[in-house]
Amino acid sequence: MIKYSEILAAYDRIKDVVNKTPVMTSRTLDKLTKAEIYLKCENLQRIGAFKMRGAYNAISQLTREQKDKGVIAHSSGNHAQAVALSAKLLSIKATIVMPLTSPQVKINATKNTYEAEVVKCENTIEARSQTTQELIDQYGYTLIHPYDNDNVIAGAGTAVYELLNEIKDIDMVFGPVGGGGLISGTAIAAKGFNPNIKVYAVEPKNVDDAFRSLNLGKIEGNETINSIADGLLTNLSERTFNIIRKNVDKIITVSEEEILKAMRFIWERMKLVVEPSGACSLAGVLSKQIPIENKRIGVIISGGNIDLNDFFQLLEKKIK
Amino acid sequence: MIKYSEILAAYDRIKDVVNKTPVMTSRTLDKLTKAEIYLKCENLQRIGAFKMRGAYNAISQLTREQKDKGVIAHSSGNHAQAVALSAKLLSIKATIVMPLTSPQVKINATKNTYEAEVVKCENTIEARSQTTQELIDQYGYTLIHPYDNDNVIAGAGTAVYELLNEIKDIDMVFGPVGGGGLISGTAIAAKGFNPNIKVYAVEPKNVDDAFRSLNLGKIEGNETINSIADGLLTNLSERTFNIIRKNVDKIITVSEEEILKAMRFIWERMKLVVEPSGACSLAGVLSKQIPIENKRIGVIISGGNIDLNDFFQLLEKKIK
Repeated sequence: MIKYSEILAAYDRIKDVVNKTPVMTSRTLDKLTKAEIYLKCENLQRIGAFKMRGAYNAISQLTREQKDKGVIAHSSGNHAQAVALSAKLLSIKATIVMPLTSPQVKINATKNTYEAEVVKCENTIEARSQTTQELIDQYGYTLIHPYDNDNVIAGAGTAVYELLNEIKDIDMVFGPVGGGGLISGTAIAAKGFNPNIKVYAVEPKNVDDAFRSLNLGKIEGNETINSIADGLLTNLSERTFNIIRKNVDKIITVSEEEILKAMRFIWERMKLVVEPSGACSLAGVLSKQIPIENKRIGVIISGGNIDLNDFFQLLEKKIK
Repeated sequence: MIKYSEILAAYDRIKDVVNKTPVMTSRTLDKLTKAEIYLKCENLQRIGAFKMRGAYNAISQLTREQKDKGVIAHSSGNHAQAVALSAKLLSIKATIVMPLTSPQVKINATKNTYEAEVVKCENTIEARSQTTQELIDQYGYTLIHPYDNDNVIAGAGTAVYELLNEIKDIDMVFGPVGGGGLISGTAIAAKGFNPNIKVYAVEPKNVDDAFRSLNLGKIEGNETINSIADGLLTNLSERTFNIIRKNVDKIITVSEEEILKAMRFIWERMKLVVEPSGACSLAGVLSKQIPIENKRIGVIISGGNIDLNDFFQLLEKKIK
């Protein structure tokens, strides 16, 4: 199991490369909840999500030989961009396996901005894994898994570590759970910082595999993956399951409507662009499943990468 | 003419009531412009715009008799909300004259959140002025003009004053110009802080009355007011015209496309919700009309109040 000291070591490793993201507050939110809410804004992290912390922590620790051969990730999302940018900053070759159906804008960003090689594959989990494995076999790349990796988890935990050092006397922390990397790192960091801090994981009701896994004591999957929180569709691994079981106080689930409502609050009232997955933890706070009155609450806003094309097309019509 | 000392006095008056808004940066933006760009995020100000600074500075200085009678403003926008909230914080009655066509959500916010009285009128400038004047005649209210008021202007100048105190050695400042209150306060504050700081006003090409006014040496209007930057449609007053003529180095104009492009950059890359008027100053920076290479540049992001209904309706369809 990952130790608190590994969070501290990760922070030393990444702190000059990642953004120390701001902590935002809202008088309206505090009034509404009768609590003090501190949003840790990882949507303002490099590449727009907390994933940068784990990817950089993991890649920077590879051996010289691994670095020379390069790294690989399969993802169309935030983790891919985090691996690509981390590799670029460390002058390491990165290969990203992306589904054929990925938006061209994401493929271009990965190729041009982050200078990674993009390999396309069919849009199934099997095709992604197979394509990735073939490339590893052929070129000796090191796979950077988005959450089933101790160094990725330790890196993810540095977000709440920063928060707890900036805002004193936090009573509880809410973070989203998908594959479980962020909430695992968050729980280890928070309990290591102060064992009295409560840690709550928030999961979309539509993909409540983590909730069921913890109840049943074994890893469960989902029959369908139909949630607007597209960063939280994956399942736990043995690694994250065990950390969560030991360190997370409770997993609570929220409806799609609750996710959108929290997201809209953050956009309209706090003027921050967050993605649906990024708003889940606030949805958990607002769902009133945990008594929060008079508490000081840290909320991890995990990311802000959302397709704004439709919205700007509406605006472009207005100026024609 | 307003003195620098009045900016300092305004700051002392309002600093415990308004937000010290964060200054945001972007590596991508700095790389793109080969400059250092510091966004002063007044979209993160209370009520979502810089207007809070001027309204509070003006209303807090009214005489006891004026305060007892109450204040009035006619606006459907950010100024109305700033007057309403400032009055509420000072326990003063506020009356807001709003056009019948105002969105219900804005009327509700003004009534319920800020507890102001809303009086509706026809959606013409004449109807607004007439309704306002009748209420002033009947009840003795004090009109808080959105920009033709020294105390409102001095309050608006405190945004850049904060910025210049936080970020050292700023070479130039860009701010938007509509009625001219914000850029007047900004120019007085910046030149008072350091006379070598250049101050540039940015105006939508479609409503370039300030640009033409400065060129012709007399106040001009617009034949049509057709810009997406709906906070910048008003004309200068004698007061703001004279301040700008003396203190602003240049007025530059930007197209609707340039405004949207700057706005989209701020949303997509910096994850901040800004309104079109709020993105104008960055559009001015990016328009390359002023040589900016290697300069340290302050950019006033004036506000973030934009109707997100269409956007969230698209998202709500996805979860049905």
